[in-house]
Amino acid sequence: MNDDQLKSMRHSLAHIMAQAVQHLWPEAKFGVGPAIDNGFYYDIDLGDITISESDFKRIEKEMRRIVRRDLPFIRKDVSVDEALAWAQENDQPYKIELLNDLKRSGTTVAKELAGEELGVAGEGDSMVNTVSLYSQGDYTDLCRGGHVESTGQVGAFKLMRVAGAYWRGDEHKPQMQRLYGVAFASQQELDEYLQMLEEAKKHDHRRLGKELDLYTMSPLVGVGLPLFTPRGTILRDKAAQLSNELRAKYGFQKVWTPHITKKDLYETSGHWAKFGEELFLVKSQETSDQMALKPMNCPHHTQIFASQPRSYRDMPVRYLETTTDYRDEKTGELGGLSRVRSLTQDDSHVFCRPDQIEQEINNLLACAQELYRIVGMKLRVRLSYRDDSEGYLGAPELWQSAQAQLKAAVVAKSLDYFEQEGEAAFYGPKIDFMATDAIGREHQVATVQLDFVQPERFGLEYTDESGKAVRPVMIHSALLGSIERFLSVFIEHTAGWFPFWIAPEQVRILTINDTVKDYVDEITSVLSGVVLMKPIKYNEVRFTTDTRNESLGKKIREATVAKIPMQIIVGPKDKTDRVVSIRTQSGECKVELAKLAEYVKES
Amino acid sequence: MNDDQLKSMRHSLAHIMAQAVQHLWPEAKFGVGPAIDNGFYYDIDLGDITISESDFKRIEKEMRRIVRRDLPFIRKDVSVDEALAWAQENDQPYKIELLNDLKRSGTTVAKELAGEELGVAGEGDSMVNTVSLYSQGDYTDLCRGGHVESTGQVGAFKLMRVAGAYWRGDEHKPQMQRLYGVAFASQQELDEYLQMLEEAKKHDHRRLGKELDLYTMSPLVGVGLPLFTPRGTILRDKAAQLSNELRAKYGFQKVWTPHITKKDLYETSGHWAKFGEELFLVKSQETSDQMALKPMNCPHHTQIFASQPRSYRDMPVRYLETTTDYRDEKTGELGGLSRVRSLTQDDSHVFCRPDQIEQEINNLLACAQELYRIVGMKLRVRLSYRDDSEGYLGAPELWQSAQAQLKAAVVAKSLDYFEQEGEAAFYGPKIDFMATDAIGREHQVATVQLDFVQPERFGLEYTDESGKAVRPVMIHSALLGSIERFLSVFIEHTAGWFPFWIAPEQVRILTINDTVKDYVDEITSVLSGVVLMKPIKYNEVRFTTDTRNESLGKKIREATVAKIPMQIIVGPKDKTDRVVSIRTQSGECKVELAKLAEYVKES
Repeated sequence: MNDDQLKSMRHSLAHIMAQAVQHLWPEAKFGVGPAIDNGFYYDIDLGDITISESDFKRIEKEMRRIVRRDLPFIRKDVSVDEALAWAQENDQPYKIELLNDLKRSGTTVAKELAGEELGVAGEGDSMVNTVSLYSQGDYTDLCRGGHVESTGQVGAFKLMRVAGAYWRGDEHKPQMQRLYGVAFASQQELDEYLQMLEEAKKHDHRRLGKELDLYTMSPLVGVGLPLFTPRGTILRDKAAQLSNELRAKYGFQKVWTPHITKKDLYETSGHWAKFGEELFLVKSQETSDQMALKPMNCPHHTQIFASQPRSYRDMPVRYLETTTDYRDEKTGELGGLSRVRSLTQDDSHVFCRPDQIEQEINNLLACAQELYRIVGMKLRVRLSYRDDSEGYLGAPELWQSAQAQLKAAVVAKSLDYFEQEGEAAFYGPKIDFMATDAIGREHQVATVQLDFVQPERFGLEYTDESGKAVRPVMIHSALLGSIERFLSVFIEHTAGWFPFWIAPEQVRILTINDTVKDYVDEITSVLSGVVLMKPIKYNEVRFTTDTRNESLGKKIREATVAKIPMQIIVGPKDKTDRVVSIRTQSGECKVELAKLAEYVKES
Repeated sequence: MNDDQLKSMRHSLAHIMAQAVQHLWPEAKFGVGPAIDNGFYYDIDLGDITISESDFKRIEKEMRRIVRRDLPFIRKDVSVDEALAWAQENDQPYKIELLNDLKRSGTTVAKELAGEELGVAGEGDSMVNTVSLYSQGDYTDLCRGGHVESTGQVGAFKLMRVAGAYWRGDEHKPQMQRLYGVAFASQQELDEYLQMLEEAKKHDHRRLGKELDLYTMSPLVGVGLPLFTPRGTILRDKAAQLSNELRAKYGFQKVWTPHITKKDLYETSGHWAKFGEELFLVKSQETSDQMALKPMNCPHHTQIFASQPRSYRDMPVRYLETTTDYRDEKTGELGGLSRVRSLTQDDSHVFCRPDQIEQEINNLLACAQELYRIVGMKLRVRLSYRDDSEGYLGAPELWQSAQAQLKAAVVAKSLDYFEQEGEAAFYGPKIDFMATDAIGREHQVATVQLDFVQPERFGLEYTDESGKAVRPVMIHSALLGSIERFLSVFIEHTAGWFPFWIAPEQVRILTINDTVKDYVDEITSVLSGVVLMKPIKYNEVRFTTDTRNESLGKKIREATVAKIPMQIIVGPKDKTDRVVSIRTQSGECKVELAKLAEYVKES
């Protein structure tokens, strides 16, 4: 089943669900009912009656009855006035409102609404004369169409939840009940999806973030502004270190820039016009300068490049900064670490000669591939091109050449890729990396972006062999993307069982009783000397000791809940034999104390 | 000569300078002329005549003539009206204005003015009846006194500069000429001071910051917001690493907090009322929350502490964060890195039980002593206590006990200390560290602060042995203070000749000709493997190679201008002998290639 077919099926299920609801509650008034990712919903007004999850069974039962009857979806084109007469006759005030709006304003408003739900027959900006009604059996709905042929062709479905939703998203309008369902072509696909949701619940980084004491939110500080505990800070720092070490191999150098700037910087770069409303504005009480928190770092980095004369021999100049950007995201869109207002980017900018682009892109692709190999996620890339809309800066022929260069680099690296227009940055085309996590979800992570525009706007230059001033090209890149977002993905990908190198607490020593105290000292002395060198360098082992007077069972349970990757259990026999008993996720083993350091280094 | 005597001498020199000016320009009108640090000034109105540095010689000559005549300073107490008559007779409008103000408002206004300049005889808040006039020879001035006995007793002096100054600091009042001089008890002290000023000019971190490519300022970003180049970023990072590693030994753990917060956090902490006007306000376009950039980190850190239940067994909890704070400093006070709007603190907060205070303070004192031993600066400490003014939060008896504990800790460490009232933070007393740089100037750097107030205001608690909730104590500390300020001091202290461990470019290899190319490869291969472990760990050697087709002399000159601590000169003879010729600030030597790694490690 292709995407269009899936959508038609899900849309048809919205109608079937509405029909079932109408059978159960004939007084139901209907709003709109579109297909969405993985399923469908319908907004329903039942007056004082509240649908609860306990009603799902009988609604589903009624839906299955309608499916079994295999009723054909029948379309009828009518004038807007005829449709109004139908809606009035059937006492559907929301449909009446939609039709009246349509009559008043034509397609423009119709498009603003969920266009498909409104039965606008045909496309184009001309005034609407006819709309379409779709019927299956005793149920008729105003609808543009996109349905399967009959109710028997809808695959596997399940009602998921019901939530309040204001009519047309306006809190001054009536609140309706939005009934959600999921649907797939086969029962197997539905089961897989439901299982993935179950898994995702167990993996939810917000729950794990609390259970594993990784970060916290404070109502005094504000939403979307996580504070990281010592454990969470280790995750942040080690992830950033991995990203930085990979790039250091290619000559990237760390720089540091402040988190605020005068508006002037973004007026010059072009960001002010493009992203003005996403900025946090900063008000000085001492100066009248209009300032803002930085939402990205490229304009700041241009100022370091521009602070010295540069020659062709100095190029490329490669800057790297792990720094926090601030974006004024909508409160409703914030959630855990997935979307935050304080996002820390592992951001880098290459300033290079045109003949160096290919090599630099290749280096960055290699870094991204290596990083996601290490964290164990499969990558594919999206080549994000411009489309014909406005807002892209720079000459079209530059864009074409740049897009071709990016594609060539991706093909040369044998990366799994797809192309998409309209996803470019305003200053140039991008390679966006999508990583698949352990439960099959795909997340946008790293990015490599070409930029011919900012060097021009900031008047950047270097002198070539003949002493002439030439514009450099900029290449933006982040490997983790936003560290907060990366961690939200990584926590769910690992379900909190972090790989040894990055685990906040790597080893916990659990004693069976007090007779082993001196032996524990020997073990900690060994661990104190162990420094891992892969995949990040100079990674001293982080261990704790649990010598409490509690049962070993309790200690193991607690260490397991805390998802400590290596538990070392120490009893009198281990002491006598000069071994340690090691418990990991893959099982248990005994290691000689003399070989412990080596064992840990290989973990 | 004690401080009072020095002050009397400098104040007398202000009168002598005025007398000399009056001899040269009889129409001169005088404002006020106090003693200041290291010298004195007088505000003078000469109408259209401008004093320039070329006049200094003859003013000084006339001053020396007055000094040689050894005229006694003679005091005469007169009524305010008699003084007014004197001022009118001598056509001194500024003195008339001061006297009239005094007559109108009594001592209150007199105190607001530079009290000593105005001849208010006697102290106290009673209305003033008499003022004093001081005369030496043909010159008389309205003056409270504090003079040497005669003009012959003034030591060594020198006029330094002249600057515009509005009468009484009010830009709507006439602009006068402020003539500055310095003065010391002996010619030797004066010479030392003048030489120190010369040295300071050479050491100026703003000049060195540019010459050594450490940081830059951008008019697009704004004043007080330095951007650090790769070289400057190495200085920042290594200094922070030193500070962090010293504390890591005592169990400090890194945390991370965002740079913005809702106002609510500072209302709870008490900072909003106290520091409201120093805050950069942040305006969200998405929420109506009033937000601000953080000017300090303690309130954020309380929220991490408060995010988990804590038991007496968990204490102390020690957080460490190197993070940037923002303070809305006055534009006129900004300068290089000494005072910036973006200040990065190596900030730490201990949450401990009352019985742990002493040990924790001791740990922090040890860290500060070790850090300034490593950077080669002599320390003394100021015990900063509260005074009787308002604005200090918390019970006075807590303050007394806290102040006594800090003093005991400082005495126990045999630190050179002095005590000062009125320098405490609003939440508790402090130990402030003052470091003396290579040219004798003292700078405030590290700080350790006790805080009984914020735990109370944030309702922080831990459960004691009996299960009862108890307030912890907070100990704030920064070792470097602001990294930007520390670097401004450190750059001037070292004059840009950074110690080997922290130098951005530690080694530069300079080739004599191309025949040594393969030998240079051997040398770089050795250097690539060298990792310094002191005073910071895992410090990989930073080296570059200068193989340009230029003369060795030119290469050495450039490396010396760049203040590279170790230059390795490679010629054909070195290659044959398998040695390297090393040039450092302390001289030259030859080292066998086989021993190079060891030599560098010891640098």
